[in-house]
Amino acid sequence: MAHERRQELIQILHDCAMACNYCFDACLKEDNVKMIADCLKLTRECADTCAFTEQAVSRNAQFHEQLLKFCAEVCDACGAECEKHAAHSEHCRVCAEACRRCAEACRNIA
Amino acid sequence: MAHERRQELIQILHDCAMACNYCFDACLKEDNVKMIADCLKLTRECADTCAFTEQAVSRNAQFHEQLLKFCAEVCDACGAECEKHAAHSEHCRVCAEACRRCAEACRNIA
Amino acid sequence: MAHERRQELIQILHDCAMACNYCFDACLKEDNVKMIADCLKLTRECADTCAFTEQAVSRNAQFHEQLLKFCAEVCDACGAECEKHAAHSEHCRVCAEACRRCAEACRNIA
Amino acid sequence: MAHERRQELIQILHDCAMACNYCFDACLKEDNVKMIADCLKLTRECADTCAFTEQAVSRNAQFHEQLLKFCAEVCDACGAECEKHAAHSEHCRVCAEACRRCAEACRNIA
Repeated sequence: MAHERRQELIQILHDCAMACNYCFDACLKEDNVKMIADCLKLTRECADTCAFTEQAVSRNAQFHEQLLKFCAEVCDACGAECEKHAAHSEHCRVCAEACRRCAEACRNIA
Repeated sequence: MAHERRQELIQILHDCAMACNYCFDACLKEDNVKMIADCLKLTRECADTCAFTEQAVSRNAQFHEQLLKFCAEVCDACGAECEKHAAHSEHCRVCAEACRRCAEACRNIA
Repeated sequence: MAHERRQELIQILHDCAMACNYCFDACLKEDNVKMIADCLKLTRECADTCAFTEQAVSRNAQFHEQLLKFCAEVCDACGAECEKHAAHSEHCRVCAEACRRCAEACRNIA
Repeated sequence: MAHERRQELIQILHDCAMACNYCFDACLKEDNVKMIADCLKLTRECADTCAFTEQAVSRNAQFHEQLLKFCAEVCDACGAECEKHAAHSEHCRVCAEACRRCAEACRNIA
């Protein structure tokens, strides 16, 4: 992977992990937590997966292709879930957008 | 740290992380999720912290003392929260017990 | 995934992460570190990947199939590298065996 | 922690983790790997610790004080080690600087 593309990917993974963690924390304070149980589950998965992938990419780990495909799949699922709540929840809207962007970046490079 | 004590600590950290992750997943299916929002927050913290500590101990990282004290503090908080729900939630009862045992083991070695 | 198979997989992932971390630490003390630079690189990848997978499986994360395939691939690479040093390095021999067993378990379930 | 300070801390932790991972990978290619065995050990500790702390801070985990003190201690050790090689190794120089900056930021907030 060329240096510049790698730096860009690391930044996108980082942004997505941060958006997911912020959304996770914000969701815990929502009244209708039941409605967003899937949201809590998926933002945790997605934050952890993006952070793991970011670390792996930054230390130039091999196995990029399979890891990035896996990461894109998790981002897809989290983005789709957060999208459902985007109309009335700003943190879900921001998270959904970060997930979409990250899934695309992972697939482009994988 | 002597080899045997280290192996024992690793096992206790592992058991605690697993109990926390199991409790996290089970809590997501509860009806009264709001009641256990703190439980979700703390089981995630505690699972991640114990897993991190377990990894660090297993690769013989330095800095044991401060990390184990931190880990004990997180276990204390998670255990206290899960204890509140122990009477009617078996996964919280099991988690609270694993946290107590882990906090004690961390402090004994730190 | 049935409960019993899941518990067995978690244990195998745990054992592999521990063997990799132990091997990593032991490799750092070898005289001919250059010879085992690949070993250090791969034991770190493999320990981190198995620990991540173990956490994900224990909290019943979705996306098992792709993650387990990725984990098997990392275990294959680490196992193949450690195998090269198995004749004269006990920690590499143990690590190679743990990796092989883990790769097989991941593939069986994925 | 105020929002702005938190964002700044997250960025510094991120930069330090990236510098450590980059240094780890670069060190693996050095001729005199033995000389930098401590460097490999500490850059791994520091990358993992900063990444863990960054995640925890971004999801607004409690227990900031103790975690940030621990993180500062790991950064100190890694920075001191990399500093020894700074004169002839650009990646170690960059890593040492990132570690110093991160240790300071962690202590300021803790």
